[in-house]
Amino acid sequence: MDVNTELNTSRVATVMATIRQRIAGRNLTPGAKLPSVRAMAKASGVSTSTVVDAYERLVAEGVILSRPGSGFYVANQAAPFSLSDIGPKLDRAVDPFWVSRQSLEADDGDLKPGCGWLPPSWLPETGIRRALRTLSRADNRAFADYGSPLGLPPLRQHIARRMAERGVEASPDQIMLTESGTQAIDLLCRFLLEPDDVVLVDDPCYFNFQALLRAHRARIVSVPYTPSGPNIELFSQVVAEHRPRLYITNSAIHNPTGATLSPVAAHKVLKIADQFELTIVEDDIFADFEHTPAPRLAAFDGLDRVIHIGSFSKTLSASARCGFIAAKPEWVDALIDLKIATTFGGGRLSSELVYKVLSDGSYRKHVEALRSRLSEAMFNVSAKLKNLGIVPWLEPSAGMFLWCRLPGDVNAADVARAALERKIVLAPGNAFSLSQSAQNFMRFNVSQTLDARVFDVLRDTLRG
Amino acid sequence: MDVNTELNTSRVATVMATIRQRIAGRNLTPGAKLPSVRAMAKASGVSTSTVVDAYERLVAEGVILSRPGSGFYVANQAAPFSLSDIGPKLDRAVDPFWVSRQSLEADDGDLKPGCGWLPPSWLPETGIRRALRTLSRADNRAFADYGSPLGLPPLRQHIARRMAERGVEASPDQIMLTESGTQAIDLLCRFLLEPDDVVLVDDPCYFNFQALLRAHRARIVSVPYTPSGPNIELFSQVVAEHRPRLYITNSAIHNPTGATLSPVAAHKVLKIADQFELTIVEDDIFADFEHTPAPRLAAFDGLDRVIHIGSFSKTLSASARCGFIAAKPEWVDALIDLKIATTFGGGRLSSELVYKVLSDGSYRKHVEALRSRLSEAMFNVSAKLKNLGIVPWLEPSAGMFLWCRLPGDVNAADVARAALERKIVLAPGNAFSLSQSAQNFMRFNVSQTLDARVFDVLRDTLRG
Repeated sequence: MDVNTELNTSRVATVMATIRQRIAGRNLTPGAKLPSVRAMAKASGVSTSTVVDAYERLVAEGVILSRPGSGFYVANQAAPFSLSDIGPKLDRAVDPFWVSRQSLEADDGDLKPGCGWLPPSWLPETGIRRALRTLSRADNRAFADYGSPLGLPPLRQHIARRMAERGVEASPDQIMLTESGTQAIDLLCRFLLEPDDVVLVDDPCYFNFQALLRAHRARIVSVPYTPSGPNIELFSQVVAEHRPRLYITNSAIHNPTGATLSPVAAHKVLKIADQFELTIVEDDIFADFEHTPAPRLAAFDGLDRVIHIGSFSKTLSASARCGFIAAKPEWVDALIDLKIATTFGGGRLSSELVYKVLSDGSYRKHVEALRSRLSEAMFNVSAKLKNLGIVPWLEPSAGMFLWCRLPGDVNAADVARAALERKIVLAPGNAFSLSQSAQNFMRFNVSQTLDARVFDVLRDTLRG
Repeated sequence: MDVNTELNTSRVATVMATIRQRIAGRNLTPGAKLPSVRAMAKASGVSTSTVVDAYERLVAEGVILSRPGSGFYVANQAAPFSLSDIGPKLDRAVDPFWVSRQSLEADDGDLKPGCGWLPPSWLPETGIRRALRTLSRADNRAFADYGSPLGLPPLRQHIARRMAERGVEASPDQIMLTESGTQAIDLLCRFLLEPDDVVLVDDPCYFNFQALLRAHRARIVSVPYTPSGPNIELFSQVVAEHRPRLYITNSAIHNPTGATLSPVAAHKVLKIADQFELTIVEDDIFADFEHTPAPRLAAFDGLDRVIHIGSFSKTLSASARCGFIAAKPEWVDALIDLKIATTFGGGRLSSELVYKVLSDGSYRKHVEALRSRLSEAMFNVSAKLKNLGIVPWLEPSAGMFLWCRLPGDVNAADVARAALERKIVLAPGNAFSLSQSAQNFMRFNVSQTLDARVFDVLRDTLRG
């Protein structure tokens, strides 16, 4: 393939990716007409023949339909509803489900530098074993009966205290337990979104935000994330133009970048949210990893436009599912109804276990030890990655993620596919990027990147 | 109030209930025009002044709007989305959430003859305590790591064997664990329903089916349930007229009636489903209560149009949330994506616990003892209720529910409200009835109706 052909192939791929992305983000919905070949060529700065080539390939894939004399249209999705159908099909490696499924389906011996959680041996194993023994002697309601709709009162009180330490004031009656952080966002989407509402996410963002929003048939738009928060100028523009109903983001430690929201950025985001009546879901799932608390949107805002959520899956247990929503009092009752309708009694057993571990004196020590262990791993993994020419986008102040640029023009999806053949699950950048602009990036979970085999495989696959 | 005024008040209430019900079932959606006063009067067999009176009261409640010179319109629901707003407001006692919330929010000392579960002391307490101790010594992944997307393999194998005993053939790979039976239905609704699709339920049916379907903004239609299954003639008519996408029903033991589907009715339902391409969700949550297995739709159908679901909350634990979906192989992959998007890893801890209890040799003996205990309770409670003039609609062959007609013209919602003031949670019939035709009925859970205070309160409230 000569250079010109190669360049043209990459241009065709870019046009195809653009269209796929608009469909994935539901900016182009089934049945919608695509931009004309001429308009698309002009907008993309490519020739009309490149666009024709791209459109024809998408027709061959069944993504779009050609109606001679009329134009190109987004194909109707075959019922029943399939999330994967909506996403890009050609390159399964950048599907928002790819990392989740490969990580969750991995065999016990596989390595998972791409996964989003700690090895079980890093969690408070002794505390959980003790809590299970305590539960085995508890009142039978704890392990046999339904929980109350809001969830275990002492755990809600504990959460309220922890939130207060980070400046977020909420009474325990404003806190509703959920079956996970994911389910917390899911309930909020049901509560706040109408079909075809627009939702804003960071670019890059946690891939499952995208997956979940697709399940709600929301239209997704994104704004580039900077080391101190969203790019405020673009944030303002996108909010003004698309009038999103919701903005879903991480506080404290951003996934996947490890960035920290600055107080200035937090203030500006809230000002724009006020102006355009935007509701913000702040996912504080990484709170316990912080050495010093970063600003929380919910702390500035006082749970007015901001809904604060969290869970215990990152630092306590991913097996005992338990998350929470803290929201303004007038929303709690309707959220309870939704929780009952969709899950009935909630996971009492898990919340009993989580509370027992949290209130065990050893939990704070566990978390302190965990932070040191992560800092050390961050330092070591970062150095080893740099040796391979894999360079962190920033040095995070805490957490488990390193968001890295691969050397040269290497496509992260290709690397991830090659690594998977050698039983290593990686997290290619575009799985996190609505704009599909992170093909050269990769997220590493330092706690899962300590085995030398990871670097052997990376070295081999980067060499191509 | 003289007899004529009283009669007229009741006619006005009937017209109001009809309109509210159509709105609740989304047969009338926000903004839709109501039938003209004249048409409504004719259809309901009442005078036009009765309809005017009913419409005016609904305007006063904010349920509908009057546009002078044009007619009456369904009011737009205020955002954010609230399930309770959609339902009838005037009489909270017949809201599908009323029983759930009162039962789940009851204090420990309250009596709950209306709730849908067994007292914790009726569950396999010893087995659960033993399983918790075993878990406390297990591999750390069991209580600290995520589960696989389909869920714990040995539990899925166990479920496949149990289903086979009831004639339903499914490989463990067709079985996906969920966080509850409720979540199983919720995932299926997401998978199969488009907004405004029609869903068919039994009348009466488990109230949470209605609550869940409202959360999905489905239009709900219902068919009267007879002692041997749905009224087939009406089933056929309603399916032909409304073309529902789904029919959600209980197999084995019907909630709330305790009825059993006959083989003839099962066959006819499946024939109609075939003719009109109806998918059926068969909720087999009461399977372990049966003395002899009743026919399963999924057994006749072979998991083609029927999706079979269940959980362990009724006979094992309501605290350890774990349910399952058994569906045709080609649907499983998309269901996994939806499960990941909305709950991520699923509840591994609960499934580990459930599997340990199920595979403990003592579980079968527990279930046998439970059946005898329920039969005895059924016999005793039935006799005591009859003494009060409260007459079971049928004598169920198994299970915990007695669906009873109250004496005279007593309104079950009034009785339930009066009982609640005396700390007793009852389950008034209209909570189960889309057509609101069960105001004279009440569901009793015999396992929760053994305290003499229940009968004292019933006697007092029936006396008025």
